Amino acid sequence: MLTAAYTGDSTITIARAEPAPPRPGEVQLRVAYVGLCGTDLHILHGNMDARVEKPLVFGHEMSGTIAAIGDGVDGWSVGDAVTVMPLAWDGTCPACLAGNSHICQNLDFIGIDSPGALQALWNVPASTLVALPAQIALDAAALVEPVAVAVHDVRRSELVAGEKAVVIGGGPIGVLIATVARAFGAEVAVIELDPRRRAQIASLGFDTLDPREVDQVAWVEAWTGGAGADVVFEVSGAAAAVLGATALAKVRGTLVVVAIHPTPREIDLQRVFWRELRILGARVYQRTDFERAVELIADGTIPSELLITAIVPLAETRAAFDELEAGRAMKVLVDVQAGQEAGA
Amino acid sequence: MLTAAYTGDSTITIARAEPAPPRPGEVQLRVAYVGLCGTDLHILHGNMDARVEKPLVFGHEMSGTIAAIGDGVDGWSVGDAVTVMPLAWDGTCPACLAGNSHICQNLDFIGIDSPGALQALWNVPASTLVALPAQIALDAAALVEPVAVAVHDVRRSELVAGEKAVVIGGGPIGVLIATVARAFGAEVAVIELDPRRRAQIASLGFDTLDPREVDQVAWVEAWTGGAGADVVFEVSGAAAAVLGATALAKVRGTLVVVAIHPTPREIDLQRVFWRELRILGARVYQRTDFERAVELIADGTIPSELLITAIVPLAETRAAFDELEAGRAMKVLVDVQAGQEAGA
Repeated sequence: MLTAAYTGDSTITIARAEPAPPRPGEVQLRVAYVGLCGTDLHILHGNMDARVEKPLVFGHEMSGTIAAIGDGVDGWSVGDAVTVMPLAWDGTCPACLAGNSHICQNLDFIGIDSPGALQALWNVPASTLVALPAQIALDAAALVEPVAVAVHDVRRSELVAGEKAVVIGGGPIGVLIATVARAFGAEVAVIELDPRRRAQIASLGFDTLDPREVDQVAWVEAWTGGAGADVVFEVSGAAAAVLGATALAKVRGTLVVVAIHPTPREIDLQRVFWRELRILGARVYQRTDFERAVELIADGTIPSELLITAIVPLAETRAAFDELEAGRAMKVLVDVQAGQEAGA
Repeated sequence: MLTAAYTGDSTITIARAEPAPPRPGEVQLRVAYVGLCGTDLHILHGNMDARVEKPLVFGHEMSGTIAAIGDGVDGWSVGDAVTVMPLAWDGTCPACLAGNSHICQNLDFIGIDSPGALQALWNVPASTLVALPAQIALDAAALVEPVAVAVHDVRRSELVAGEKAVVIGGGPIGVLIATVARAFGAEVAVIELDPRRRAQIASLGFDTLDPREVDQVAWVEAWTGGAGADVVFEVSGAAAAVLGATALAKVRGTLVVVAIHPTPREIDLQRVFWRELRILGARVYQRTDFERAVELIADGTIPSELLITAIVPLAETRAAFDELEAGRAMKVLVDVQAGQEAGA
């Protein structure tokens, strides 16, 4: 079979590998589609070289069907359509013992810390499987993982119906957070610099702002009757966005830190103090987030067809990253089975 | 009567004034003791000149007895011992309407935004009064306001019995937070640079750390069995403390921002994200905090006699500030009645 691996130095290598049978407790998946995300880009650029073991077959947003079942696995059948919640926790660290196994202190993020989905046949622990209902197409199902991120972020914020949320950064995760927050009953505005993205987000029915053209604080004040936003999601990763974010939140409002900020960021703690703000980190997801994400895709809440801007065969994974990086795409999927026969 | 007022340019002026009778809805208090705090120091140094109206008779930590009662005030008698919760809210802003009147968007902090307690006879709205039980001495009662700050900070953190808390900064508020957190059932360690303060805090039975001598992250890890602290209170106001604070908290742990940080501070948002930390601003107090503070002083939980390091007459208010600023004192009280006869 063909695999796509990060082999260091911004390089993706398409290589042949022999599939292994599933071990006890595992299933073997025939991978259908793999979505590429910002974390994969970080890996490609070497930003996570201290963490990843090369060559790394990466990819953690996926859909597929069960090809084979290992010993001791019950409740699944060959042919079942599934996605994978790519987390494996140790179950023994203080975080796990306190009930926060999704952010286990020794978390194995499958596809980063261990081999991922950019291979025709992929073995995963059966405990990671999440069933897909028949009405979800396998390409849309590759969005379950990023949608689960968005569900987790919105649940973490404790946003309730009728509240107003601001999303800073209208990339794929920002759009998904906006969509999930709206599905949870909130009114949502999205702050985004790129005019093409703003237009796309506006076409989904969201208010959009260009902070270089509009005084975002005044806009949010007016939008909220002088109160400020109930929840602000920081999804941009930009230092300036963090510094400005606290001014958008109401008294006792919430700022959710979704983006990765590799270096410390300045925060207006005077504002945090003055308004008794709450800043929450939000990382990955819990099983309930995955299950809710499946529902939101199945019922059409997530505009999958708008979000998936390209589907490429495995051999063109590198080109897909270039597309992603140029900001020309919302979500690019790799069709893992396309070309497998030719390359096998 | 004599009053002590900030008159600009780091100056405190002791002046004579004619007491006014209480207006409807007000009571006139015979002020006994006034505590001086960091905010008063900020006022003295002109840091709050944009906010305060000069001359400002300041002081907001106080105790006293009712001297006269205005029209329409029920439930109080001349001679009652009281303290004042020095907040007046507008009741109409979005924060008030949402139930957060203690941090009203147009809050009048009495003693900062309107005249305070450094005067022999002080008129306040009857709604601000908090009754003092007979067993509290009036000097100890001047600590109710800072103790209420500490109660508010601890309640805001949602610390529960059996948890472990780290207090960064062992000044008066840090010590009070440590004391309240322990009274709420927590184990508490205090990080403090000054050796005299560390010794005093240790004498109260707290673990203390000098972060220049001990690796505070390793210490907290060991103390918490590898988990990290449940709650970290940032009371130092120092940029370095903020930057280091996130490394002390457990997965889903809480960092409470108590200190005033006049300029934006760098925060390790990667850690906030990675551990799904929660950062909470905590400002002033609610009535329940005042009532709990009265109880904690009445039952001896607060070591009032250790905390009150000096009591000076009103005429020496300036010297009291110098003492405070030099870090030689925990809490300095002004005896407002001492010297009033001579100066009247």
